[in-house]
Amino acid sequence: MFEKNMKIAYLLDFYGDALDDHIGSVMRAYYNDDLSLAEIAADEGISRQGVRHLIKKGEEQLFFFEEKFGLAKRHGELTQACKLLSEIADTLEAKPDCEKEAAQISDIIGIILKGNQDVSESD
Amino acid sequence: MFEKNMKIAYLLDFYGDALDDHIGSVMRAYYNDDLSLAEIAADEGISRQGVRHLIKKGEEQLFFFEEKFGLAKRHGELTQACKLLSEIADTLEAKPDCEKEAAQISDIIGIILKGNQDVSESD
Repeated sequence: MFEKNMKIAYLLDFYGDALDDHIGSVMRAYYNDDLSLAEIAADEGISRQGVRHLIKKGEEQLFFFEEKFGLAKRHGELTQACKLLSEIADTLEAKPDCEKEAAQISDIIGIILKGNQDVSESD
Repeated sequence: MFEKNMKIAYLLDFYGDALDDHIGSVMRAYYNDDLSLAEIAADEGISRQGVRHLIKKGEEQLFFFEEKFGLAKRHGELTQACKLLSEIADTLEAKPDCEKEAAQISDIIGIILKGNQDVSESD
């Protein structure tokens, strides 16, 4: 009935900072630190039902953000694009007279990954 | 004292859908349709001061979203990355035995631009 959805933990990486402080703290305790509802309730000084309510609210906010901004989906697409670019750079490096293009592609991968790195570090 | 900031109009392209309905409608009337405070006040049936308050709140939300998610900054970086990739694809196309890599790079640009297109259309 109230199962942990691991997609939520993933969305939390992208949108956790934008949640209300109280909701964010409960969500991280539940999804990242794997505390039980009872443990979180004790820490926060609220009822288990209150914790359940905040988690539900947090989940709704995360799904709302992903629907509007699609950062998680985008992250996957860009990671895939960088993987493909990296393979092309390798191929070019082995060809005569293509080292410059291979190096330029590597630089561009750097630009694309820069905005992806915060989350990919915790992948 | 209350000048239109064109950066806001740009941020509105990225985050407008995530604003509260009322705030979003006032922001679009002011920034996209260029209505005056008095015109918006009449349309919405609220005071000019009320309109001013909603616009201020909307602006704060847009800056908050950009600080947390950086979609506008990211859009600029990815547009630049695609421009550079496109130049590399052109160079490779003119080289012997590099047509396949040029075509692959064009496909990857397609993947990267797909997530950028909603806003770039209104650039």
